[in-house]
Amino acid sequence: MKYVTTKAELEAERLNWEKDGKTVGFVPTMGALHEGHLSLIRKARTENDMVIVSIFVNPLQFGPDEDYDAYPRTIDMDKALAEKEGTDVLFVPPVAEMYPQPPYNKVSVIKGTDVLCGKSRPGHFDGVATVVLKLFLLTRPNRAYFGQKDAQQVAVVKNMVNDFHLPVEVIASPTIREKDGLAMSSRNKNLTSEEREDATTLFSHLKIAEDRLRSGETNITELEAEMKRSLHNATSGTVDYLEILSFPSLTKELKDKQVIIAAALQFSKARLIDNIIIDI
Amino acid sequence: MKYVTTKAELEAERLNWEKDGKTVGFVPTMGALHEGHLSLIRKARTENDMVIVSIFVNPLQFGPDEDYDAYPRTIDMDKALAEKEGTDVLFVPPVAEMYPQPPYNKVSVIKGTDVLCGKSRPGHFDGVATVVLKLFLLTRPNRAYFGQKDAQQVAVVKNMVNDFHLPVEVIASPTIREKDGLAMSSRNKNLTSEEREDATTLFSHLKIAEDRLRSGETNITELEAEMKRSLHNATSGTVDYLEILSFPSLTKELKDKQVIIAAALQFSKARLIDNIIIDI
Repeated sequence: MKYVTTKAELEAERLNWEKDGKTVGFVPTMGALHEGHLSLIRKARTENDMVIVSIFVNPLQFGPDEDYDAYPRTIDMDKALAEKEGTDVLFVPPVAEMYPQPPYNKVSVIKGTDVLCGKSRPGHFDGVATVVLKLFLLTRPNRAYFGQKDAQQVAVVKNMVNDFHLPVEVIASPTIREKDGLAMSSRNKNLTSEEREDATTLFSHLKIAEDRLRSGETNITELEAEMKRSLHNATSGTVDYLEILSFPSLTKELKDKQVIIAAALQFSKARLIDNIIIDI
Repeated sequence: MKYVTTKAELEAERLNWEKDGKTVGFVPTMGALHEGHLSLIRKARTENDMVIVSIFVNPLQFGPDEDYDAYPRTIDMDKALAEKEGTDVLFVPPVAEMYPQPPYNKVSVIKGTDVLCGKSRPGHFDGVATVVLKLFLLTRPNRAYFGQKDAQQVAVVKNMVNDFHLPVEVIASPTIREKDGLAMSSRNKNLTSEEREDATTLFSHLKIAEDRLRSGETNITELEAEMKRSLHNATSGTVDYLEILSFPSLTKELKDKQVIIAAALQFSKARLIDNIIIDI
């Protein structure tokens, strides 16, 4: 595995592969790799000739009061894990390499951010779309892999790829969970042990909502409100949202063939999100 | 010359060239080609193996009260001219090919639009940057050619290329002028004959300001105001702006090695812009 920190080193690798007609799978991450990331790397490994993993905690996607500084950073462990899974290039640019000058441009996400995380994290998805565009242009992958846990992020990236005609296939992989159901997330490291116990209630409530929908519940507004109340009572965290939306369009009107039940819980030092997507 | 209207046809050509390692020059235009455009095509022709010219009147860069509908469209003439200059592919997508769905994303230009055209045309450069990004991703040129008449556009595109790590060299070519000094522009077609006579005063005033600067004038604010008054008195058009700025940074503070003197005149059905860039 090559460990590269500059655009120039990455480009040198990339040009070699291009000459040889190699296909490239790309797994963009913010590091603190867990089994969820590793499942993406493994998938990329089986579907492409070469695999690039990036680790970049992107300041642009953190709000001023968010956890940029506290976001877990475990680079030595990450290196070992990425190498073990057969990564060819691990790209770990410093901030000044990705943003060498105060930017003149950003990607603005102008639709679909009035729900879920978009609503409570203004500017977050502009930061995500901007850095993903930059990373796609630097890595030029055939396929890029994202976790379905970040469902709105997947939607944002897929829409951007369509809008800007990027030649990348965006692949979303199922959420990987701890034995007790908690979705794996780098931010789980920032839970206190009490909060860690509490946190399982996030997924349980999504499951209850899922059961209710599968049993034919049609009053979505009431179900949302009831689940939100119940989740509020079950945890020391603050319920940021619990929403049931059409998927992938993320609209209130259930016009697609799937529905997403998604929720976010804010704990003392970690904001957790999770979702379940079901056919209707 | 191949005349193509779909992304798929363009991509087929592009992939062939890629296989053969051909370099590509790209001249994006809104059509109504004149000698200014042709000079860009000729430059692209000498510097690259293959030349793509696009004609697309991009609705996104026109404000609601601007001249989208009235913008000159002369496609048969354009085809003949592009072919004569040795264009390999003329890409003329319909609006629905470039914007098949209401977009979820745009490029936002977040710096440098508080001066010149950016000030009076809010959203204009977002539209420019967005469509240029899309066209760059579709045509994947080694070099792209723009007229220096649209100086702020050149700055916006160069900044975007830097910000997003696009592998394109952006080349700005000198403004081509009519014998009486009027900068060539597709919009000149929309001048009445009286306005056409009047319009020469735009460049004359830039020249006067240039002479004054070369003669050592240092009171920029006073020179701007004086030139603006004089231009106002000399034309039936409305002076949108006359500004003297550092170039290429487009700041009031003269920190670069060049200065741009730029002005815009609004006539009944045409808004004309022009500029002179000088070393200081």
